[in-house]
Amino acid sequence: MNTEPYLVSPGTPVSLDHWDPGDKGGWNKGEGSARLELLLNDLAGLQERLYAEGQQALLIVLQARDAGGKDGTVKKVIGAFNPSGVHIANFKAPTSEEQAHDFLWRVHARVPRLGMIGVFNRSHYEDVLVPRVLGGLDDAATARRLAHIRGFEALLTDARVRVVKFYLHVSAEEQRKRLQARLDDPTKHWKFDPADLQAREAWDDYTQAYQDVLSTSSPEAPWYVIPADHKWFRNLLIAELLVQTLRHMNPQYPAPTFDPAGLRVP
Amino acid sequence: MNTEPYLVSPGTPVSLDHWDPGDKGGWNKGEGSARLELLLNDLAGLQERLYAEGQQALLIVLQARDAGGKDGTVKKVIGAFNPSGVHIANFKAPTSEEQAHDFLWRVHARVPRLGMIGVFNRSHYEDVLVPRVLGGLDDAATARRLAHIRGFEALLTDARVRVVKFYLHVSAEEQRKRLQARLDDPTKHWKFDPADLQAREAWDDYTQAYQDVLSTSSPEAPWYVIPADHKWFRNLLIAELLVQTLRHMNPQYPAPTFDPAGLRVP
Repeated sequence: MNTEPYLVSPGTPVSLDHWDPGDKGGWNKGEGSARLELLLNDLAGLQERLYAEGQQALLIVLQARDAGGKDGTVKKVIGAFNPSGVHIANFKAPTSEEQAHDFLWRVHARVPRLGMIGVFNRSHYEDVLVPRVLGGLDDAATARRLAHIRGFEALLTDARVRVVKFYLHVSAEEQRKRLQARLDDPTKHWKFDPADLQAREAWDDYTQAYQDVLSTSSPEAPWYVIPADHKWFRNLLIAELLVQTLRHMNPQYPAPTFDPAGLRVP
Repeated sequence: MNTEPYLVSPGTPVSLDHWDPGDKGGWNKGEGSARLELLLNDLAGLQERLYAEGQQALLIVLQARDAGGKDGTVKKVIGAFNPSGVHIANFKAPTSEEQAHDFLWRVHARVPRLGMIGVFNRSHYEDVLVPRVLGGLDDAATARRLAHIRGFEALLTDARVRVVKFYLHVSAEEQRKRLQARLDDPTKHWKFDPADLQAREAWDDYTQAYQDVLSTSSPEAPWYVIPADHKWFRNLLIAELLVQTLRHMNPQYPAPTFDPAGLRVP
């Protein structure tokens, strides 16, 4: 599968118009779902090697508008990993303790240790999205934060934490359907927040803010735009990119520190 | 399924001879595996309610001898949950920072928050097993630690954290096979630790220490002995007990704080 079209090219201006949220990459649902099962199996095998090796970590950053599919991605794709080797960090509105520190303090504490896969469901990128749209952060302050983020991700890369970032790209119409479905189903009311409607009103402002966020794509910490109107294609593409990333990291079972041939369990 | 025979009765002396590690509870593998799939599906549904409700937590304690099946249980049974709602804590030999605190300090920090399921892969019970067998902890000190554990678990119960504890019960012969398999397969060498052979030599001392551990079974924080020579039966019984426990906790979707009928997504 050619994933190149979904990579945000480092160092070029970003326009989200470039990607179609309804894109299916030429796949149909049946073939895509069959392929996904193979990929999920590959992911489990690669993760075991990563865990056994204990010399590298993978940090997956998930960003999206409300109802963009972050939780579904965690459930379906991340759910393929052995839970012992995964740590999920769900970042909500900062607590008073978190607000009393720099904006990277709370995320730094949740970086996966070597051997582990970490998932940031929302992340440090929220701090250049929400305050920007709501007007608390001007362009100069935003630029400084983006520079700090670049520095932080370079630090992780140096410490053998591979960073890969996914923006789940939904259309306004698909978001409308999903939010309405949460209102219509009593077992989904808990997922609905009336404040989501305000973010929806500021759709274009968020588009602009996300485009600046995506400009932090770099060879070491790339952003991918994931067409997300079709959940099965979203899962397929993310699984494909994670397999590629882990294959490239190429984790190996460690050599034993003892002589296996010289031992016998009595 | 009648799970009563696997409960350690509170307040009575415990002898592990009472349970057969090869017990299959009258099931065969085919029927048991089919039943397991249904239970795993139930677990996912119950967990979503627990997470949505956010008013109770579940703490699952896993203890076993080496190769007893803790990791396999996490992978197969705990893997059925949405990873966003689960936190796994793998307790290894304590760090110098941890040793500079009381023995419950590091485990207290890993207790699941309300709405979450926490898994302790090894736990505070290691502190009344290893040092006891190796001779560093006398009977009086052991009794004090067990009393502290009872107090700690009562605190959690009061804070709406349901505690359920599983001892995975393997036979010496099954452990021998599994450890030898780790020696024979290069992709399993990383799971083998020559120190496991020393613990194996002290088999009877550990049996005695585990029996005292199991005596902390209480109505609020029960211990179950899980026959674990057959992996499929181990998974089946644990899944059954978790379904029973979560059904008894009876989590409910919360009432919405807004009027769903009065809202429409524009």
